[in-house]
Amino acid sequence: MYIAVTQATRTEVKERIDVLLHEYCAAKMIDAQRIGERYSLLWESIAKLVNAGGKRFRPYMLLAAYNAYDQQGTVESITYAAMAQEFLHLAMLIHDDIIDRDTVRYGIKNVAGQYEESYTAYINDTQERVHMAYSTALLAGDVLLSEAYRLISRVDREPARVSNAIEILADGVFDVIGGELLDTENVFLHDVTISAETVAKYKTASYSFVSPLIMGATLAGAPSSEVSHLKMFAYNLGIAYQLRDDLLGVFGNTTTTGKSTSTDLTEGKSTYLIEQFEALASPTQKAAFSAVFHKADASEIELSTARELLIDSGAKAHVEQKIKLLGTRSKELIHQLAISETHKTVFYELVSTCLEREG
Amino acid sequence: MYIAVTQATRTEVKERIDVLLHEYCAAKMIDAQRIGERYSLLWESIAKLVNAGGKRFRPYMLLAAYNAYDQQGTVESITYAAMAQEFLHLAMLIHDDIIDRDTVRYGIKNVAGQYEESYTAYINDTQERVHMAYSTALLAGDVLLSEAYRLISRVDREPARVSNAIEILADGVFDVIGGELLDTENVFLHDVTISAETVAKYKTASYSFVSPLIMGATLAGAPSSEVSHLKMFAYNLGIAYQLRDDLLGVFGNTTTTGKSTSTDLTEGKSTYLIEQFEALASPTQKAAFSAVFHKADASEIELSTARELLIDSGAKAHVEQKIKLLGTRSKELIHQLAISETHKTVFYELVSTCLEREG
Repeated sequence: MYIAVTQATRTEVKERIDVLLHEYCAAKMIDAQRIGERYSLLWESIAKLVNAGGKRFRPYMLLAAYNAYDQQGTVESITYAAMAQEFLHLAMLIHDDIIDRDTVRYGIKNVAGQYEESYTAYINDTQERVHMAYSTALLAGDVLLSEAYRLISRVDREPARVSNAIEILADGVFDVIGGELLDTENVFLHDVTISAETVAKYKTASYSFVSPLIMGATLAGAPSSEVSHLKMFAYNLGIAYQLRDDLLGVFGNTTTTGKSTSTDLTEGKSTYLIEQFEALASPTQKAAFSAVFHKADASEIELSTARELLIDSGAKAHVEQKIKLLGTRSKELIHQLAISETHKTVFYELVSTCLEREG
Repeated sequence: MYIAVTQATRTEVKERIDVLLHEYCAAKMIDAQRIGERYSLLWESIAKLVNAGGKRFRPYMLLAAYNAYDQQGTVESITYAAMAQEFLHLAMLIHDDIIDRDTVRYGIKNVAGQYEESYTAYINDTQERVHMAYSTALLAGDVLLSEAYRLISRVDREPARVSNAIEILADGVFDVIGGELLDTENVFLHDVTISAETVAKYKTASYSFVSPLIMGATLAGAPSSEVSHLKMFAYNLGIAYQLRDDLLGVFGNTTTTGKSTSTDLTEGKSTYLIEQFEALASPTQKAAFSAVFHKADASEIELSTARELLIDSGAKAHVEQKIKLLGTRSKELIHQLAISETHKTVFYELVSTCLEREG
């Protein structure tokens, strides 16, 4: 079924994509039986993660960009490209969780977490069991990355557009791997400084915003000038999204975000917010902050003090200002697009949703 | 430059592919600079591994199958599909080495090994350093898998053929991930028995033999009956290749194989050879063998005894017989192909090379 974002709410699009992703995993579970029951179980584990969460922002953006440039809007197979965004994202999350040694995602055990539990029956040694569970998660991420490409190749549009879409996906992966590397090494490479904005650009904006938006437009046959504009829009929006994420990671409402507001501080996560603090704070403020930052067992009172320092130094306000600026730029870029007002509205709403979100 | 396998030796094809892979990595090193110097270093590490070894069997098979069905033989971009086979293979090797915790490949340090060394300057804790090095290798494998798809999409042939080629690659990845999972879990899941032949079929034959051969034929426009025949040929050849590998792992000449002939025994690797021993050996032979098999510090004398038991039980002869049988079947299948005698000869030689190889 074709999905026109102008005729469906974001929730309706999400529900439709949820069903398609679920059906795809179910079909893979059956196909995997051919190889072995255990492989089918891996797909079941992936399916659990698929069903557990995800706002389906990327599929929505792809469809929004596609719809904006294809007025006929009758190409059902475009949903394959939308699904591909989600599988790529899931692959990256699963591999990112291996690097970060996280076993929870969307409030449930991720693939590694699920396998660590099920391998308990077979492997007594904890270190060995964890290694095997992460190994299985590694394989899950690989096959999802691969299926993303399969899905795009199934889009029934002009061949040149489809091969451009594949290049766009490959560009996104090339960037996110680079961004992930910089982010990972940033923690311990003390002789190299990577700005949080660079990490946000390559780790988040590129594959999560640029790829879906320009792939949608490209598959719809948008002229290259439009694709260039959308790309700039996507970078601005994607970086702003990440900055908003950083703010929520410290000042958010745990109930709406579902995320802790202390982890970023106790783990000493280097974000744009922290960079601004370093640039703006007085020596006294810095000293007080560094007594709490990266302190695994910081108390609630200490964490409150750290938050206040981020406010008092002007760092929080600076980030909010930056988000507003990126939002304004994003909206200006939408304004310049050669698309209908109805479709511009879809994008304007996207900007508001990303930048004003509380979760 | 187009490569016709009938006019070039396998060594010449390898040399040409070597150059192309090297040039591709060099271009990526430059492109990676845009993201960060450190990302460029990751591509340098990948390039080292690319240059260190690999027989380029997969690219050769792809080109052989392509040439057999395209008599014009003038499509230069087919080499992209050949390169894709090698990048996929490298991605799988890098990820396989993470699972097996190996740091050496082709006689040099693999990506994880290289990074473990370079991270010594930054991370004192060994466990943490190893984790970060494997994390970086994980990222390297991801981007190589992704680049394999990019390369295939660049082949300048009928769009339907190219999208079939992408499906073939995705099928190969789907299978190898399943095969790798079965192989990995086989070590500790004592309530599940996976035959070594099943593992060989999905872990080796599918992506290393079936994918290159049927992708080459498909891109050349071979009829589906021919593709089906080639597929059967590829499974027979691929399984035989793996059985030969298992034999060389115990009875090979270390000088020609470059591999230890004790590791498979001391690590207790479950191969087709071992399965045959279990089926054919007497209780006394089994008892003597199990005293050495999976014994990490087995002496040379003990290992020799184990090898003799594999011979005396008839297991070795059985495997050799099986390889011969698979070889004969492979040759019969070649005979039935609707291709010229010259091209059949290329395939016959391929069978001999795979099954009689000493390294």
